[in-house]
Amino acid sequence: MTEMLTMQQALARLAEYWAGHGCLTVQPMNTEVGAGTLNPATFLRILGPEPWRVAYVEPSVRPDDSRYGDNPNRVQCHTQFQVILKPEPTNPQELYLGSLAALGIDVAAHDVRFVEDNWANPGMGAWGLGWEVWLDGLEITQFTYFQQAGGLNLDPPSVEITYGVERIIMALQGVTHFKEIRYAEGVTYGEVFGQAEYEMSRYYLDDADVDTNRALLEAYAAEAQRLIDAELPVPAQTYVLKCSHAFNVLDARGAVSTAERAAEFARMRRLAGEVARLWVARRAALSHPLGIATPPAPARPAAQSPVPADDAARTLVFEVGTEEMPPAEARAATAQLRREVADRLGATRLAHGAVTVQATPRRLVAVVAEVGAREPDHTRTVKGPKVAAAYRDGLPTPAVQGFARSQGVEVADLAEIEIGGVVHLAVRREEAGRPAAEVLAEVLGGAVAALRSAKNMRWSDPELSFTRPIRWLLALWGADVVPVAVSGLAAGRTTRVHRTAAAPVVEVAVADGYAGTVAAAGIVVDPQERADAIRAGAAALAAQVGGVVDLAGEAGLIAQVTYLVEQPTPLLGAFDPGYLELPEAVLTTVMRKHQRYLPVRGADGRLLPHFVAVANGAVDVDQVRAGNEAVLRARYEDAAFFYRADRRTPLDELRGRLARLTFTDKLGSMADRAARIGGLAATLADAIALGGAERATLDRAAALVKVDFGAQMVMELTSLAGVMAADYLRHAGEPAAVADAVSEAEQPRAAGDAVPASLPGAVLSLADRLDLVVGLAATIGLPTGSSDPFAVRRAALGLLAVHRSQPAFAALSLREALAAAAARQPVPVPAEVLAATAEFLTARFAQLLGEEGQPVDRVRAVLPHADRPVRTDRVLAQLAAAVESDQFRALAEAIQRCRRIVPDDVAAGYDAAALVEPAERTLHETLSAVRAELPAHPELDEFAKVAGRLVAPVRAFFDEVFVMAEEPALRAARLGLLAAVRDLGAGVLDWPHLRL
Amino acid sequence: MTEMLTMQQALARLAEYWAGHGCLTVQPMNTEVGAGTLNPATFLRILGPEPWRVAYVEPSVRPDDSRYGDNPNRVQCHTQFQVILKPEPTNPQELYLGSLAALGIDVAAHDVRFVEDNWANPGMGAWGLGWEVWLDGLEITQFTYFQQAGGLNLDPPSVEITYGVERIIMALQGVTHFKEIRYAEGVTYGEVFGQAEYEMSRYYLDDADVDTNRALLEAYAAEAQRLIDAELPVPAQTYVLKCSHAFNVLDARGAVSTAERAAEFARMRRLAGEVARLWVARRAALSHPLGIATPPAPARPAAQSPVPADDAARTLVFEVGTEEMPPAEARAATAQLRREVADRLGATRLAHGAVTVQATPRRLVAVVAEVGAREPDHTRTVKGPKVAAAYRDGLPTPAVQGFARSQGVEVADLAEIEIGGVVHLAVRREEAGRPAAEVLAEVLGGAVAALRSAKNMRWSDPELSFTRPIRWLLALWGADVVPVAVSGLAAGRTTRVHRTAAAPVVEVAVADGYAGTVAAAGIVVDPQERADAIRAGAAALAAQVGGVVDLAGEAGLIAQVTYLVEQPTPLLGAFDPGYLELPEAVLTTVMRKHQRYLPVRGADGRLLPHFVAVANGAVDVDQVRAGNEAVLRARYEDAAFFYRADRRTPLDELRGRLARLTFTDKLGSMADRAARIGGLAATLADAIALGGAERATLDRAAALVKVDFGAQMVMELTSLAGVMAADYLRHAGEPAAVADAVSEAEQPRAAGDAVPASLPGAVLSLADRLDLVVGLAATIGLPTGSSDPFAVRRAALGLLAVHRSQPAFAALSLREALAAAAARQPVPVPAEVLAATAEFLTARFAQLLGEEGQPVDRVRAVLPHADRPVRTDRVLAQLAAAVESDQFRALAEAIQRCRRIVPDDVAAGYDAAALVEPAERTLHETLSAVRAELPAHPELDEFAKVAGRLVAPVRAFFDEVFVMAEEPALRAARLGLLAAVRDLGAGVLDWPHLRL
Repeated sequence: MTEMLTMQQALARLAEYWAGHGCLTVQPMNTEVGAGTLNPATFLRILGPEPWRVAYVEPSVRPDDSRYGDNPNRVQCHTQFQVILKPEPTNPQELYLGSLAALGIDVAAHDVRFVEDNWANPGMGAWGLGWEVWLDGLEITQFTYFQQAGGLNLDPPSVEITYGVERIIMALQGVTHFKEIRYAEGVTYGEVFGQAEYEMSRYYLDDADVDTNRALLEAYAAEAQRLIDAELPVPAQTYVLKCSHAFNVLDARGAVSTAERAAEFARMRRLAGEVARLWVARRAALSHPLGIATPPAPARPAAQSPVPADDAARTLVFEVGTEEMPPAEARAATAQLRREVADRLGATRLAHGAVTVQATPRRLVAVVAEVGAREPDHTRTVKGPKVAAAYRDGLPTPAVQGFARSQGVEVADLAEIEIGGVVHLAVRREEAGRPAAEVLAEVLGGAVAALRSAKNMRWSDPELSFTRPIRWLLALWGADVVPVAVSGLAAGRTTRVHRTAAAPVVEVAVADGYAGTVAAAGIVVDPQERADAIRAGAAALAAQVGGVVDLAGEAGLIAQVTYLVEQPTPLLGAFDPGYLELPEAVLTTVMRKHQRYLPVRGADGRLLPHFVAVANGAVDVDQVRAGNEAVLRARYEDAAFFYRADRRTPLDELRGRLARLTFTDKLGSMADRAARIGGLAATLADAIALGGAERATLDRAAALVKVDFGAQMVMELTSLAGVMAADYLRHAGEPAAVADAVSEAEQPRAAGDAVPASLPGAVLSLADRLDLVVGLAATIGLPTGSSDPFAVRRAALGLLAVHRSQPAFAALSLREALAAAAARQPVPVPAEVLAATAEFLTARFAQLLGEEGQPVDRVRAVLPHADRPVRTDRVLAQLAAAVESDQFRALAEAIQRCRRIVPDDVAAGYDAAALVEPAERTLHETLSAVRAELPAHPELDEFAKVAGRLVAPVRAFFDEVFVMAEEPALRAARLGLLAAVRDLGAGVLDWPHLRL
Repeated sequence: MTEMLTMQQALARLAEYWAGHGCLTVQPMNTEVGAGTLNPATFLRILGPEPWRVAYVEPSVRPDDSRYGDNPNRVQCHTQFQVILKPEPTNPQELYLGSLAALGIDVAAHDVRFVEDNWANPGMGAWGLGWEVWLDGLEITQFTYFQQAGGLNLDPPSVEITYGVERIIMALQGVTHFKEIRYAEGVTYGEVFGQAEYEMSRYYLDDADVDTNRALLEAYAAEAQRLIDAELPVPAQTYVLKCSHAFNVLDARGAVSTAERAAEFARMRRLAGEVARLWVARRAALSHPLGIATPPAPARPAAQSPVPADDAARTLVFEVGTEEMPPAEARAATAQLRREVADRLGATRLAHGAVTVQATPRRLVAVVAEVGAREPDHTRTVKGPKVAAAYRDGLPTPAVQGFARSQGVEVADLAEIEIGGVVHLAVRREEAGRPAAEVLAEVLGGAVAALRSAKNMRWSDPELSFTRPIRWLLALWGADVVPVAVSGLAAGRTTRVHRTAAAPVVEVAVADGYAGTVAAAGIVVDPQERADAIRAGAAALAAQVGGVVDLAGEAGLIAQVTYLVEQPTPLLGAFDPGYLELPEAVLTTVMRKHQRYLPVRGADGRLLPHFVAVANGAVDVDQVRAGNEAVLRARYEDAAFFYRADRRTPLDELRGRLARLTFTDKLGSMADRAARIGGLAATLADAIALGGAERATLDRAAALVKVDFGAQMVMELTSLAGVMAADYLRHAGEPAAVADAVSEAEQPRAAGDAVPASLPGAVLSLADRLDLVVGLAATIGLPTGSSDPFAVRRAALGLLAVHRSQPAFAALSLREALAAAAARQPVPVPAEVLAATAEFLTARFAQLLGEEGQPVDRVRAVLPHADRPVRTDRVLAQLAAAVESDQFRALAEAIQRCRRIVPDDVAAGYDAAALVEPAERTLHETLSAVRAELPAHPELDEFAKVAGRLVAPVRAFFDEVFVMAEEPALRAARLGLLAAVRDLGAGVLDWPHLRL
């Protein structure tokens, strides 16, 4: 930010920079597009095998972002600068940093970070992996490795770099409203584009004619299809773009129903896919006018060093250098590399010490202590035919001759060995152990090739696939380079430190020197050490302003930040105390979720106007602080703007907006969902006979549930749903109980989160989750494997947690509740789906109970109550107490004894008159008395107390009565009697599972 | 052309250059536009008083120019680089030359010329004056001073500079097909845009759905209107642009009828006008966010030099420096300035010699010899009351006292003077003559302010208006600057020579040194001298290749070229002799009309493969030659392409294309017009009883008339209409007579041009012109003043020339022919329009005859025959012979004598029986005999011979008979007799006009 460029200068600089790196400069698309990605210079050119490098400005029209020019950061037409590099040039991040430098940004002084952010555009059948790039906490660029477009795999993959020009310029110029941007010398952005911004906003939000745009949409789609049929992908694509814009206009006008939305997306996706396929075919037919990108050749391994004379064991360091891995992936890869190295090494005969693996965002580092210089020598024995059958008439059989021949020895040279008491002919061969270099090259190469993440990508490497590109390998055994070569990569002795270092590539002389070398460059390889530095730094910085950071409470965030930096540089920032008037959740959500800042609190636990950010590397702390503060200021200013606007908005209007928010294509709008939740809540309230004030609270809250989804704050920060409701409803004069209940409807937000405190809130929360689980089960199915886009599992767990939290729900059957929820869905919910959903809940519940430490037998025993989780908990508690008592154990034993002797198919009825022995008469009478005393659905402890009287009669019965009497009627009666005992507690526990 | 930029480098250079001159850089319009002018950054911003400087690339879509990428120079989407300077910066041409230099063009070595080319876009309600800029004969830029847009006057006017980027780059890179342009390092234009060019051509020419695009057009227009009603000019304009594009697509698909075209243009013009008015109002309401451009302050005149002591007369030089005037305007301004200076100087008392004025494209130079140092002193006399009434009672009357007071003198000081014999009191005052500087400043200032051309423009000067901007004034009387100041200009002693000179601004010490100073810079101020240099140079250069230039035949072109250069540098160029196979008219038309080259012919009169171009200034002749040759090559290559394509095209297809060419909105297509001409020709042929082979020729030719308007060659070079028909029809196997007749239908092309040689050709030509004149008279009216957009005057003159050329047309009444033409028009032609048209023709004919030197009395006398011009000519010839004979003169005198004595209202009947005197009886008898002998419609000589016998009886009658007898019946008979003589030749001549 040393040089203050105007916006047009910045655009010219970027164009010049990228042209200097081999990019074509083309013009923006001459029809409205929502992003540079849609320009055929991207969308079509990333397809197929032809190389392509291009850079261009793209004014990107987003009707929905229209704000009449009032919002400081949001415009209906923002300026993207788009770069495509195909194939990716193996150093796109470095090139990108060069472009920032070209803009006058001192990338060494600033904190430039690559923060995981993947990209998908279902309407284009396209996705990719990459990052948003942060400049001192400000997102300035989207950086993506495209993997698919138009439903086609991209080979070679392209890198897309999309600069958000207005944001960058606002940061560079230090202005806080887009209109203040110095667009050119002496002219502001507002002066040039202000009127258009206002008028186009008017058009998109208020004045666009819905019928006309609907007709345009249809006309465009028809023309696109005609052109596809005519095999003309270029004009066809322009019409797909026109479709997309017309749709966006209709959407901004609030004129798209959810059914339409689904249909339109499907149509656009289909058209885009056909355009892509046509383009690929046409380019092939034209024999690829721009040539075919050649993939990099396989790497040649380093020359193998001779085995050192001293034959001593040495340290192995193996570094896998990557582009910034997502924190979770870096952690997972740490474990995977450790396993791969250890297992593969273990499968050799090479002596070695402990294997440790650590990771930063940019590297996985495996260190193996004391790796021997070579494998020990070894005798290899090859088993041949049995000696017993080896000779016929004193001569070796053809089998023996063949064996010897196959082993390249004479029959006379065969030895005899004994295996399992049988003597075989055999060949013994002395084999020399392989040198460490050879063994390690194979082990490490295999380990790299095996690396996989939850979501893998391709880059220019011909074979590798991982969470992000692997860019270099360092492998040193002692002072020797291990000649690892895998696909396009060969290991060497160089590592890379900070990209902005004076010498970003550094040579390592010897394995034991690795740690010192990277440490000297500031890289902290050990995540624990980084986390400690963050915690210590945060605490010290907070103390400077008399505050503290809740290190325990922020453990998750700290763990994430630990993997966002290689060299943590905590810094203390401040914000205007005036913002403290915003709800605390707003402030902390922005800090944590958007900025990864640690909030600072005073002794009383209240927020202080400070935060701790963690930069990467030896940045200019003052500059980085200023940048981060500016970002937070902008975000808080936005939040304050939303907060004021939302509070001014009548509840009815907020609620009205729900109709414009889609829940899912088939399940309607958020308004539809809110209506279902409200209705279902009433049904549930009836089921638990909720009455009085609570019922009144529920009824009002049910009418307002989800209302804050229509608030600007929640549209921006969805995790504040509910939190804002509490505030806004109170502000609107609703009773506190109602406000709380609506707020609580969103609880719990995640596993372990608080559940609703009030019963009305709990009813709403249950209704919410029942609606979600049933609706999604009926439309996209229950989650399987790792795919759970709508977080059905989380909803299910929340549902269970809420049920368990309120004793009143003991009366509430989940199966019945699911059926009630099903009845309200806009789609039919088949009985088998409902049954499967109930079983899904039961399974989740059982798993949960197990995770909570309940013995598995008890869990299984209480599952008959899973339909009422809160009751299950009670039964489990009673069971836990019961199993401590001899009497209960005796009762259980008695019941089990009955079960063991009675075939399963014997029912619990018997002719009491047939019983003759006193012991069986006594048992019959006791049983009758117990039955009479037990209520219909006894609790476990009640059951145990009453049924406990059966213990002695059962024991006596077995002592005195021979069950299997010869006389059939008598035998049937005796078996029936025992079956009755067996089944007496059938509804209480699933007794057979109980292990005592 | 020393540096070979890629196209993208060139675009970046232009953007950088203009940004460096204060231009905003904006993006192309994000909807399809046909030109950068339509981008709101031009169309809206040139309106109103706000300053605005902008530069941008505009990919300009012209569906009609689609050629599937096959044509080397024509693409459906070409790249404009657009610059707007508002207000014009007083040196826009110099800035423009700087931009060429930025592209690496050595503007001193090359021939950069500003050639008149005005601009109008009726659909935008916009026009301006300016030039196309030529680089060595290649049109590379359109340069316009906008005067109106959206029907609104522009104040301040803007300069628009539109670069045709592909053309410039092709010239810079020396490539001959757009696909070969090096777009970026290692990538051609064809590689980048070739597929899109093909596919979009397919769309526009073949595959665009007509119904869909028609529906789109309607939807866009409706939306534009709605937005206008909502007072949102910005989105409204985008919809006007979408209208325009949809219309262009329909047009390219051949789906626009002439009626539709008219309606659509009217609608777009109306919408654009409303958008413009709304924008202006909105900007005013916003208080003009970009400020208001301040007009230049009035200039302060140079300090007036003291009158030199010697009081000698000195030379006056007055130079009015302009931007390049159109040749005709420069000539007209020469005369005007001479008149203005001479008249104004004549109105002073300053002694002076001859006034001479000469002009180049960039300057008007007046030289006045021997201009005195001051006016002579002078006694001024003011007349007062008559002395006779000056005193009452010896005292001066109040009137006398008042007179003295008003003159600031005492009554005693009054003198007496005699005026017309009456003595008055008077005041005499001696007045000193004003010095030359004062007188000349007034004279010259007035002269400049009075300069006007046929079409005037405004520029940044607050008051002046002329054909092109006036940029400087030099005014020297001897060594003194004449302190002229007019509006924003003050005269000085500096002149400007070639813009590319090392010192483009030069000081002139003394008036007599002016000629030498500018001559030293190469400027030839005298047009005669320039013309001589061109003629001599051309002849010498042609002689080098054994050829000649037809200096007499090319006089018109040479006269034009004389005013296109200030320093003629003739150079000889060559072209591939292979092109000589093209029709000669094609070659010479391209040379003359497009390039202003002089054709070179061999001794046999046949074209040689050479031309003489005339560059301006001391250019690098080899470079300029190479450039001009390349331009001619491209044009000939185009022509050869068209020629081959046309010859391959069946006549029916050519004719079919006529339906797509509009003649005028109301008069239908060219096909309609051809049908009318054919039909009318048949009617005319019947009227002159054309039969036999000629009739057969006519009938076939009538079916083919205008056929070559459907040929590509004629679409490109409309002046070849007819010429190509002769070639193509012969080639298609039509008889030579038919081919010639169709060709001759287009003759004469201009005044003095050849008329059809054949009678069928003449009939067609007449029919053509009758149709045009009647149709236009009925729709847009007959031409008035200088407005004659469809050249009705030229058609009328052609019509007369053709009629006069064929004796057979003596039978053909123009009035009847006009009526027949009127009957075929698609619009009603009222009788009064028909009558006015006939009178218009008569008036033109009379004027023409006068211009041909016929005495006005004779012309008037023969006008009764004007309806049959060819007969008129015969009568005139007879009259010319007759007036030489005494007998005819006596006859005429006799007739006149009768007319003089007979009141006009006396009719020509009389009762012969009432006549009594012998002389009157003789006259009666002679008259009866003459009448009996004369045919119904006698020729003049026949009439003279027969009626000549009346001379003596008439004379005798007047000698012997007293006409005004008292007896009424006798008097009536005598008057009737004389009236009969008077009217005898009524149809022969209009005798009263004859002056003998």
